[in-house]
Amino acid sequence: MKSHTTYLTFKVAERMDFLNITPQVEKAVRESGVSEGLCLVNAMHITASVFINDDEPGLHQDYRKWLEWLAPFDPSPERYRHNRTGEDNGDAHHKRQVMGREVVVAVTDGRLDFGPWEQIFYGEFDGKRPKRVLIKIIGE
Amino acid sequence: MKSHTTYLTFKVAERMDFLNITPQVEKAVRESGVSEGLCLVNAMHITASVFINDDEPGLHQDYRKWLEWLAPFDPSPERYRHNRTGEDNGDAHHKRQVMGREVVVAVTDGRLDFGPWEQIFYGEFDGKRPKRVLIKIIGE
Amino acid sequence: MKSHTTYLTFKVAERMDFLNITPQVEKAVRESGVSEGLCLVNAMHITASVFINDDEPGLHQDYRKWLEWLAPFDPSPERYRHNRTGEDNGDAHHKRQVMGREVVVAVTDGRLDFGPWEQIFYGEFDGKRPKRVLIKIIGE
Repeated sequence: MKSHTTYLTFKVAERMDFLNITPQVEKAVRESGVSEGLCLVNAMHITASVFINDDEPGLHQDYRKWLEWLAPFDPSPERYRHNRTGEDNGDAHHKRQVMGREVVVAVTDGRLDFGPWEQIFYGEFDGKRPKRVLIKIIGE
Repeated sequence: MKSHTTYLTFKVAERMDFLNITPQVEKAVRESGVSEGLCLVNAMHITASVFINDDEPGLHQDYRKWLEWLAPFDPSPERYRHNRTGEDNGDAHHKRQVMGREVVVAVTDGRLDFGPWEQIFYGEFDGKRPKRVLIKIIGE
Repeated sequence: MKSHTTYLTFKVAERMDFLNITPQVEKAVRESGVSEGLCLVNAMHITASVFINDDEPGLHQDYRKWLEWLAPFDPSPERYRHNRTGEDNGDAHHKRQVMGREVVVAVTDGRLDFGPWEQIFYGEFDGKRPKRVLIKIIGE
């Protein structure tokens, strides 16, 4: 069994944004030398997501609006008790649960085994500081 | 290490529906010859889900109503900017995030290692056309 | 390839609560003898979750309030058709979809490869009876 581990670091300028990280994951798969296996990609921070969807700017704007409805940004400790700790990111811990922490992707013939529109995104909900993503590939 | 990859294709008659695909996944596990390992099952399209829950028609009706509240079908480009692309499925991209893209199931003694009520479902949110599901099993 | 499977059982006193199960998962990783691989942790019941987030009591209180807004407890069969079956836990099947069934965590150098604040939680949404969690580690 082979295994390969890589870490990416992102500092997103906005509070909330989505980055297409598919090229970096494809690069890690090539470097792993794995032909058949599984590839895990996860946010290492709990106010961020890794998810798979469409690389379409209108959709990403829809997601931002929808997530803001589901869990509005509100630094006060009234809406989010979490913000009594001095943090202002209670909303981000909720948004991340909707969009998910991780994806697991099949590696087949040495490549990410994707449907026609699948792309991997890093979802940031509490940006403006460096945060990490883990990529781990195991297989043969 | 053994690996086994299968693709399923579904053309769902309704816009939104749930199909129990547990028998097909069990068949793939038997064909894999894997006794101890992991089984990934994921939607290959970004307006569909694979998830694990109960095979109970009332619950599935509840899910449909709930998802419609969370992200109503609306082909206009006012609610979903994504629909400015000419698509009418902005809602489906949201519903899929709530229900998830994939499940990873343990394979133990050559079988899906399930609790008493766990069943695997394909969740379609933009049906009426053929769409694919990937099954990948790795282990020994 | 090595593999290791463990089952945990929890009987949560409240209807809804979150338990930090990171120590139990770390123990299973040590027992597995796996140095590089993947660790799956999933709820075996369909009214419970396993998820990764912050071990902060205020946040957990926020989650409880938010999940109650998203899918209120209501034993009547009017809101949830699922409750026509004689169950009263329709809400729990919805809450579990928001928080997720499982996590997959990288094992690197024999340890859970975690960011600074990642902790694994069992999320119970229909407690007061024994329910199981599965841990499966594969790798080398």
